[in-house]
Amino acid sequence: MRILLVGAGGVGDAIAKIAARRSFYETIIVTDYDVSRAERTIAWIAAKHGDDVAARFTAASIDASDPDAVAAVAREHRATHVMNAVEPKFVPTIFAGALAAGADYLDMAMSLSEPHPTDPYAKTGVKLGDDQFALRGDWESAGRLALVGMGVEPGLSDVFARYAADELFSQIDELGTRDGANLVVRDSDGNEIFAPSFSIWTTIEECLNPPVIFEKEAGWYTTPPFSEPEVFDFPEGIGPVECVNVEHEEVLLMPRWIDAERVTFKYGLGEEFIGILRTLHRLGLDSTTPLRVRSANGPVEVAPRDVVAAALPDPATIGPLMSGKTCAGVWVTGTGVDGSPREVYLYHVSDNDWTMREYESQCVVWQTALNPVIALELLATGVWSGTGVLGPEAFEAAPYLELMARPEADGGYGQPWGLREG
Amino acid sequence: MRILLVGAGGVGDAIAKIAARRSFYETIIVTDYDVSRAERTIAWIAAKHGDDVAARFTAASIDASDPDAVAAVAREHRATHVMNAVEPKFVPTIFAGALAAGADYLDMAMSLSEPHPTDPYAKTGVKLGDDQFALRGDWESAGRLALVGMGVEPGLSDVFARYAADELFSQIDELGTRDGANLVVRDSDGNEIFAPSFSIWTTIEECLNPPVIFEKEAGWYTTPPFSEPEVFDFPEGIGPVECVNVEHEEVLLMPRWIDAERVTFKYGLGEEFIGILRTLHRLGLDSTTPLRVRSANGPVEVAPRDVVAAALPDPATIGPLMSGKTCAGVWVTGTGVDGSPREVYLYHVSDNDWTMREYESQCVVWQTALNPVIALELLATGVWSGTGVLGPEAFEAAPYLELMARPEADGGYGQPWGLREG
Repeated sequence: MRILLVGAGGVGDAIAKIAARRSFYETIIVTDYDVSRAERTIAWIAAKHGDDVAARFTAASIDASDPDAVAAVAREHRATHVMNAVEPKFVPTIFAGALAAGADYLDMAMSLSEPHPTDPYAKTGVKLGDDQFALRGDWESAGRLALVGMGVEPGLSDVFARYAADELFSQIDELGTRDGANLVVRDSDGNEIFAPSFSIWTTIEECLNPPVIFEKEAGWYTTPPFSEPEVFDFPEGIGPVECVNVEHEEVLLMPRWIDAERVTFKYGLGEEFIGILRTLHRLGLDSTTPLRVRSANGPVEVAPRDVVAAALPDPATIGPLMSGKTCAGVWVTGTGVDGSPREVYLYHVSDNDWTMREYESQCVVWQTALNPVIALELLATGVWSGTGVLGPEAFEAAPYLELMARPEADGGYGQPWGLREG
Repeated sequence: MRILLVGAGGVGDAIAKIAARRSFYETIIVTDYDVSRAERTIAWIAAKHGDDVAARFTAASIDASDPDAVAAVAREHRATHVMNAVEPKFVPTIFAGALAAGADYLDMAMSLSEPHPTDPYAKTGVKLGDDQFALRGDWESAGRLALVGMGVEPGLSDVFARYAADELFSQIDELGTRDGANLVVRDSDGNEIFAPSFSIWTTIEECLNPPVIFEKEAGWYTTPPFSEPEVFDFPEGIGPVECVNVEHEEVLLMPRWIDAERVTFKYGLGEEFIGILRTLHRLGLDSTTPLRVRSANGPVEVAPRDVVAAALPDPATIGPLMSGKTCAGVWVTGTGVDGSPREVYLYHVSDNDWTMREYESQCVVWQTALNPVIALELLATGVWSGTGVLGPEAFEAAPYLELMARPEADGGYGQPWGLREG
């Protein structure tokens, strides 16, 4: 397996660092628009694991917005797998470039949605991933695999859903992904600051788009942003967090392979963050349409959302200032295999102190990066295989969760997951 | 009197339109960085009042950021008075340009403050207007007048304060400027939208700087933003509005000429607006320091506050979408001339329907513009005179208020003001 890693930002960097401890692949080409970021990642690996390990990594520059450029880099390095670790707006070009180069493809977020033109808060328009699933025939006929939505959420959440369907339930009422954290970021004076732990660009996209819900009778439909608020009690000391419906890939992926009455995604944003996102929206500062703005060098055209992202700390840099844990999981309700009502929360918790100590990577970014590495290993070893455009729930979940939880000393990833009943 | 009007934005435009109905001056040179804005104002005057009136106006371009450029335009047109109607950040350059050209000067906002370097929410640093008062000797020795803070607030509020001291009170406990409105802006579908009625750039500057308070014992001191919230009941149907301390020129001007135990300024921002300003601050979007931001044409440097201003509707354009009234005034407490406790609110209300109908100018902008025209008329007719750097309260208030209230048919401005006891 020769992996072309596109993007050496927070998640791409952590993918390379996690992979550096594994031996299932031949080489990883770490690429970025800014090649110095890729070089920095490889330098970290060399310092931590020595030159022999670092020799399996090569830095290169790439333009993720150009499918031909992606295909050219993939061909030059004879990549067998293209691992997309950049913002979802580049999904179409990397997806096309991988197929053109004859490589398999993985991503952690799917092609973007477009709201329904006249009834955005009730009906779906272009859904997340629609543009990728539309090309599934091309991938099938090429005999290539695109494994889409293979981060933590989507990704591990979809693996949990498949596990619940296979092992724990005879009938599922709801697959409810629930994500929450108790992370706090403090500046050097110890004052709490506003610093989202994940790309604000993507967070705005997720949170201000109409949330999508799946119901077996109604199919996919949407609601206004921040609908159906619910306080969910997260495990391992995180505690209760206010969660609201948010547009997310799980809702589009799970129903394609798993039988459930209802599929939802709720994000534990908390009241303050919801208020901030509402304000950004009210002022038009969430917009991606460039505005003409004065500057010292004359008028320039910038998208307000890019300015918001530039004004906030880079999520990849806040790890040392952050403390707390983040939890990703799926709350499943329905009928157990013994025929009685059952309710479980399957989850994985990532602790920032640990991820910083082991990887110099903040926990939300690191938790996202862990999962595509596990998936790549299962593909490399032939435990997982397939062609076409497939979600994580299209693959057997038990071997994934076993490899993830198995101690590192025994060849696993040493990342136990939890099951809470009721 | 030959008036160089610097700025044909909302307020500059309204100054020209109000002056077009008066005859106290020889000519007004309407200038702007973008000369087409000045030409548009004069075209409106020609259409409304005919070519003879418009012939007293000339359009020209100006660079308000360059004192030499300001002086050159002033000399070229033999300006006797420079009327500054642009953002306060250009005060120093226009102020210097006017003096260099030997002209008198008026503005509606004073040179900007800088917070105390180590104790910003308790002590003053550089105060509003300090940079102007520091040059008072230059103006005095040149025999020229700089009448500073001569809009509505500061401006009319300072006139009210002087009137209270001269006519209504033997001793003043507090001069409390209180500004509130019931303005609503709706889009073409009738939905209420967020559209501040005054420059958001200036509003952020005012509201997020540490508010300044004057007390006779303590002198000037500051507090954290949005301190001492108070619900003030505004007249003429506006009703109760939540007001908070805001940094404003009145607090720096009034104590220099009027004896009062305490001087405050509270702005009726309302809870929603306070929340929005707090969020902008928390995210660093109030900053005037340029950030590096990606754009379609490569990285650009823009100040987040300029982006916020560009994202919101131009306050000069929202008049037709707006309804309601705005009230400016001073709440005075102390001992009346008869020796008994007295409490009055002196105020002026501006109704958007009326200002739009008469001037195609929204009411907050129009109310600001009214006052420097009255002041210019009093200077032109010799009712007011002086040299040095003076605030509006340095001049006799009664003739001002009489000219303002007198019906237009009798040569006044037809703008009655109110006095509410208790």
